[in-house]
Amino acid sequence: MRTDENALVDRLSYLATEPDKYIVRGELENQRPEDLADALQRCEFEVTLSILQKLDAESAAYLLIELPDDLARDIVTQLPDATVAHYLDILPMDDALALREYLEDERFEALLHVIPDQDAQEIRRLLSYPEGSAGQLMTEDFVEVRPTDSMSDVLDLIRNTNDEEFETVNYIYVLSEDRHLLGLLTLKRVIRSKPAALARDVMVEDVITVPVTTEEEEVARTLARYGFSAIPVLDDRGRMLGIVTADDAQEILDEAHTEDVLMLGGVSGDAENYLSLSVVELIKRRLPWLAVLFVAEFLTGNVLRYYLGDRADSDPTASLAILAKLQLVIPLLIGAGGNAGSQVTTTITRALALGEIRSTDWFRVLRREFAVAMCIGLILGTLGFIRSVLKVPIIGWGSPLPLALVVGFALPSIIIWAATIGSLLPIGAKRVGVDPAVMSAPFISTFVDATGLIIYFEIAHKILGLYGIRF
Amino acid sequence: MRTDENALVDRLSYLATEPDKYIVRGELENQRPEDLADALQRCEFEVTLSILQKLDAESAAYLLIELPDDLARDIVTQLPDATVAHYLDILPMDDALALREYLEDERFEALLHVIPDQDAQEIRRLLSYPEGSAGQLMTEDFVEVRPTDSMSDVLDLIRNTNDEEFETVNYIYVLSEDRHLLGLLTLKRVIRSKPAALARDVMVEDVITVPVTTEEEEVARTLARYGFSAIPVLDDRGRMLGIVTADDAQEILDEAHTEDVLMLGGVSGDAENYLSLSVVELIKRRLPWLAVLFVAEFLTGNVLRYYLGDRADSDPTASLAILAKLQLVIPLLIGAGGNAGSQVTTTITRALALGEIRSTDWFRVLRREFAVAMCIGLILGTLGFIRSVLKVPIIGWGSPLPLALVVGFALPSIIIWAATIGSLLPIGAKRVGVDPAVMSAPFISTFVDATGLIIYFEIAHKILGLYGIRF
Repeated sequence: MRTDENALVDRLSYLATEPDKYIVRGELENQRPEDLADALQRCEFEVTLSILQKLDAESAAYLLIELPDDLARDIVTQLPDATVAHYLDILPMDDALALREYLEDERFEALLHVIPDQDAQEIRRLLSYPEGSAGQLMTEDFVEVRPTDSMSDVLDLIRNTNDEEFETVNYIYVLSEDRHLLGLLTLKRVIRSKPAALARDVMVEDVITVPVTTEEEEVARTLARYGFSAIPVLDDRGRMLGIVTADDAQEILDEAHTEDVLMLGGVSGDAENYLSLSVVELIKRRLPWLAVLFVAEFLTGNVLRYYLGDRADSDPTASLAILAKLQLVIPLLIGAGGNAGSQVTTTITRALALGEIRSTDWFRVLRREFAVAMCIGLILGTLGFIRSVLKVPIIGWGSPLPLALVVGFALPSIIIWAATIGSLLPIGAKRVGVDPAVMSAPFISTFVDATGLIIYFEIAHKILGLYGIRF
Repeated sequence: MRTDENALVDRLSYLATEPDKYIVRGELENQRPEDLADALQRCEFEVTLSILQKLDAESAAYLLIELPDDLARDIVTQLPDATVAHYLDILPMDDALALREYLEDERFEALLHVIPDQDAQEIRRLLSYPEGSAGQLMTEDFVEVRPTDSMSDVLDLIRNTNDEEFETVNYIYVLSEDRHLLGLLTLKRVIRSKPAALARDVMVEDVITVPVTTEEEEVARTLARYGFSAIPVLDDRGRMLGIVTADDAQEILDEAHTEDVLMLGGVSGDAENYLSLSVVELIKRRLPWLAVLFVAEFLTGNVLRYYLGDRADSDPTASLAILAKLQLVIPLLIGAGGNAGSQVTTTITRALALGEIRSTDWFRVLRREFAVAMCIGLILGTLGFIRSVLKVPIIGWGSPLPLALVVGFALPSIIIWAATIGSLLPIGAKRVGVDPAVMSAPFISTFVDATGLIIYFEIAHKILGLYGIRF
């Protein structure tokens, strides 16, 4: 596939210079829009624009929809109104709405006057629903029949409408006169039933639907959960307005997925193509979190300063050597705590997202994570202790026994603490209605850095105190 | 949905004690297997088992398939052979194969002798393909016709076979006598064509297929890319063996997604339900990475020891105060570097996974990330510098100017370094054929900890040297 695409990129670059558009159309006629779009993303912008201008309007419109938003936006602004209006006209309604995102509001309004009135009205209707709701995601082009229609009526309807009329004909919806959804027929069922049978006798009555104001991600999850290829959308009085199809739903889920992954890494923002984001946009997505974490990390400095800093000034000889030794293992300790915390918070956040656990399961989760952290902490603590006392260069540090004991006790304590924080923070976030993914790995690490140090120094105080060492 | 489910959980717990199975069946008849499965996961194991034993075989089999693997496995081992054999018999072939994962090999072999020979043979055939390949994911139950069949022949075929015969009737495949795939008909197209038209004249010839040995994740991605609801699977001589349907493909993608997310957090292993994993299994998934990172973090200790440790012993008075001060900001510096690195590596790993960038784009990525890191580094560096020189308690540390300069220069340097590592490591991994997600946020953080410290101390040496301060 890789070499195919490279060949296609080369061919497109060559075809962009071809003056005869019919040659270009002929050459690209058998290419799927998905493949063309992938290749065009790898071409120079001028090549992409030139190819789109040479294609017939229908191919160009479908290709445009497959391109990443930002590239499509750049291209649309370069195309004449007549062309864009024609796109609006031939595209399925949900894709036409997507096209709107690439245009300035004023230009879009102007275009609505150019296209047929009926389409313009449908677009305006869909736009009246809340942004990101089922209403903006749905299409009104579904097959509807009356309960008294026979199976042969249904087949005739499908037979006699033109090819672009319906998004899918696999589901046929049975509606009452006042547009209430009474039931559902699959095309398979229609074919397999007697031609004279009536819709009301064949239909399945228990249909899963969503209200028009449902958030689009929830619509997509409902569709995916039941494996349907479309789901009906109802208004608040139970009348059917349209359907959301599985392919549109899948796009929503894929974007949500990307946003989740980025958030886990401490990056906020929409799922936009990496290369399409400018450096300024990249900074905007990263700096806020980084600055918050940076300021939070000042806390760690304050903890250090509290335990070490000022004493170093006041008492420059006695305990300084022991303090210097205590500091050598700080990165090891907070590193292990941060990593253990990241693992827990990633696992719990994912389990919450998949519905495997809920906020009411917090105690069960905590018990498990406590047990896991205890075992991992003991293993790493033993490793750390051995390493500390060993007198072999590079592998061991040859620390005095009291210091090695501090490391051996502090490691499990910090890891258990990190696991507690790493499991409770996402669950707590979910509980108060915040997206648990905000409790990202970087956030947990930073939090564990500061608090883990307190645990470390308190343990050091206690253990070194037993040996009569004070600092 | 939440309250519905709680009500269902209560009802199931009550029904489990109901001795009359027909009452149980009647009560649950209208529940979808997806909803029942969700509720049963929240019930006691005995309740789930009891409900499954009371349902009719068909409902129980479909319900079992909806349960998480581990729970289904526990239940299957409690059911009599006759029941499980019956499941094997009525389930679609791909679900029957899934059932196999819940059984011991010997028991599964024994069951194959109980079910009809034809089904047993199909199961054996599918099992002969490599694990995780299209061959094991596909079903042989697709609608096939000959090129000389007419549209009315096709409709008759669909009309006259029983309801479970085909996974989908929306696609009809046109095969030659020697089982080569000649073309595809959609059910919609069949209905809309003249009844006497021949398949060879109506069919679409350019069909996207996958070889039977294709890795299942790639099959799923191909299906998702084109938005098909099924894709044909061919053997190495181009003969059609079966189809993979979109719902099975989606499950594969969802699992792959979960594995990606967990790996980003430094957790390895399959996408299994969190609560179903034992504490030992949780430890197994986390300890390896954590131990590797722990040992790697020893490096950080060695770096610290190299710059500080031994000198503290040999020269306990002169430079010790400055060293103590230098150490106070270490968590701040390596924290910022680790967080910035996590952001970059998460972003790049995701962009690689989505195909937005490729390994050949490394220079372009590096240039962008360099610019981003430069800006972010300058902002945080300025913040850090101001904080260091400020003499206000808590907000400022009132460090001497040379130290504040070290912080101000070290921060951008470490952040730029982290961005370089964070972008090149995933791209490099991809290049050599390793999953970029292995370069997880914890890995980058740990790597940046050790190397960032070297940068810090080298800068400190240079800047403090200018002021005549040696350490």
